[in-house]
Amino acid sequence: MRHYLGIDLGGTNIAAGVLDESYRIVSSAVRKTACPRPAQAIMDDMVAAAREAAEKAGIQLEELEYIGVGCPGSVNPENGFIQFSNNLAFYDVPMGEYLADRLGRPVLVENDANAAAYGEFLAGAASGEEIRNFIAITLGTGVGGGVILGGKIYGGSNHAGGELGHMVIQAGGRPCTCGRKGCWEAYASATGLIETTRESMRANPDSQLWKLADGDLSKVNGRTAFDGMRAGDDAAAQVVHAYIEALAAGLTNIINIFQPDLVSLAGGISKEGDALLVPLREIVDKEDYARFGSQRTRIAIAQLGNDAGVIGAALLGVKKG
Amino acid sequence: MRHYLGIDLGGTNIAAGVLDESYRIVSSAVRKTACPRPAQAIMDDMVAAAREAAEKAGIQLEELEYIGVGCPGSVNPENGFIQFSNNLAFYDVPMGEYLADRLGRPVLVENDANAAAYGEFLAGAASGEEIRNFIAITLGTGVGGGVILGGKIYGGSNHAGGELGHMVIQAGGRPCTCGRKGCWEAYASATGLIETTRESMRANPDSQLWKLADGDLSKVNGRTAFDGMRAGDDAAAQVVHAYIEALAAGLTNIINIFQPDLVSLAGGISKEGDALLVPLREIVDKEDYARFGSQRTRIAIAQLGNDAGVIGAALLGVKKG
Repeated sequence: MRHYLGIDLGGTNIAAGVLDESYRIVSSAVRKTACPRPAQAIMDDMVAAAREAAEKAGIQLEELEYIGVGCPGSVNPENGFIQFSNNLAFYDVPMGEYLADRLGRPVLVENDANAAAYGEFLAGAASGEEIRNFIAITLGTGVGGGVILGGKIYGGSNHAGGELGHMVIQAGGRPCTCGRKGCWEAYASATGLIETTRESMRANPDSQLWKLADGDLSKVNGRTAFDGMRAGDDAAAQVVHAYIEALAAGLTNIINIFQPDLVSLAGGISKEGDALLVPLREIVDKEDYARFGSQRTRIAIAQLGNDAGVIGAALLGVKKG
Repeated sequence: MRHYLGIDLGGTNIAAGVLDESYRIVSSAVRKTACPRPAQAIMDDMVAAAREAAEKAGIQLEELEYIGVGCPGSVNPENGFIQFSNNLAFYDVPMGEYLADRLGRPVLVENDANAAAYGEFLAGAASGEEIRNFIAITLGTGVGGGVILGGKIYGGSNHAGGELGHMVIQAGGRPCTCGRKGCWEAYASATGLIETTRESMRANPDSQLWKLADGDLSKVNGRTAFDGMRAGDDAAAQVVHAYIEALAAGLTNIINIFQPDLVSLAGGISKEGDALLVPLREIVDKEDYARFGSQRTRIAIAQLGNDAGVIGAALLGVKKG
């Protein structure tokens, strides 16, 4: 029986997992990233996690055709170098070679968001045979994007493409961590939603949002506004409405640019499900440039949750169909 | 000696041209599109223009491997159908088959903006061997986009992708012809620039812009604000500044999404050259997400002018490198 092994290197955890032939995780192992640490120390723990996952699955590393890795930052999949990773303070790290030397197998390295998108593409929301062009959006601390075109990860000429969150939708608007003003991420991320919720609370001292946050602005999270809306609070409903409008603006932009088969939404906010999807689709249906065409982009919630990174990394050497 | 024949079907003219082996136009022929007309009448004139161009070049159609066509609207290059063309009032027209029957050669059909981009890719601003990912922007009545990824035209799953002009950069802003508000096209097209110029004139009755437009708002064109700026007029300089900021916002979005090797700018406004490029690059340099990387997207003026459509159509069957 064939197996796959993937390692998802995150800012908090190193997660390794073994998949079976049906792309399900059969074993996993975790180490703390504990950054900042020297790249070598982190990579040695990646090796340890990979060995542990393989052992738990009862397989030998030699059985594997390759091992896949997802890493944050600007990753060159051709030579396995991490050119730059802000989160990990990596600069020109030859990760592919280092791991291949120690694990004795070829190692494929990709940007972590791209790897997670590839996981959804092969084993999650976009696994249908007919899907060839697919965009994965993650609504988290930021807005992450993974772009699969013609069945392949698209990373741009310098492997830094797909920064969909850093698309300005409100020129001159809210400052973004990237230095621009009015980026999609500044509105459509959980961070952006929390900021909009707080703005509304300051302007509406009688809103139930205060009760939901225990009277404390620092306790607002990505669910507060949705919970307030469900409790019948007007200010909360307006926050959710503004959030979904901003989300739809960027999403329609992406559809008009790529006209993919499917866009998936992941991250904490995507758990709102239909409370998010129904009004979102309504706006996109009115604004998609191809709305009069017979074939339209579908919008769905991602299926693999936090496992997308490990699964996608493990499947980096697999092609669909 | 090998030749290529391309037909560029526009709202005003049908242009056919024969290229030699070095991708230069050696003969051409034009007919009026004179739409609205039945698709068959227009296609018969496309046949006539193609035959005339071939005759002028002294070649037989039989010498050609194929004939290429660029057509506005939603075009399916796989079966040669024009699914829908707003400009020409075409709906489900089997253009490829019709022309192939009459010309006796295989016919390749593409969206006209994609074909023009492919012309710049093979024979113009992006013809360098090293360029594989390329975005062509045309600043005209609208903002058109052509997307070449990995050396191939990218049209999306429904052949309606690449609508880069219909990316909102100012949510809730200026109404766009597409039904959205705040599209890039509403600011960065010649039409958008003219509207901004008129807004400024209404607000600044003493501006020299009035003199440049003969005191007549209807005489404002895409050059008026640039001319006013060169004449030292403050209001005009502000219009140009706002125009370039909006252009840069959308362009940086596109760079952050695609990180291509090159973006080219075509259309009347692109003739401003450095007056446009220098401040544009300055903004992009500050906002490109990959600005700290070693490999950056270049921005250049397109080289083929109005011939891009015919040249690109003629070369639809050619691969780079």
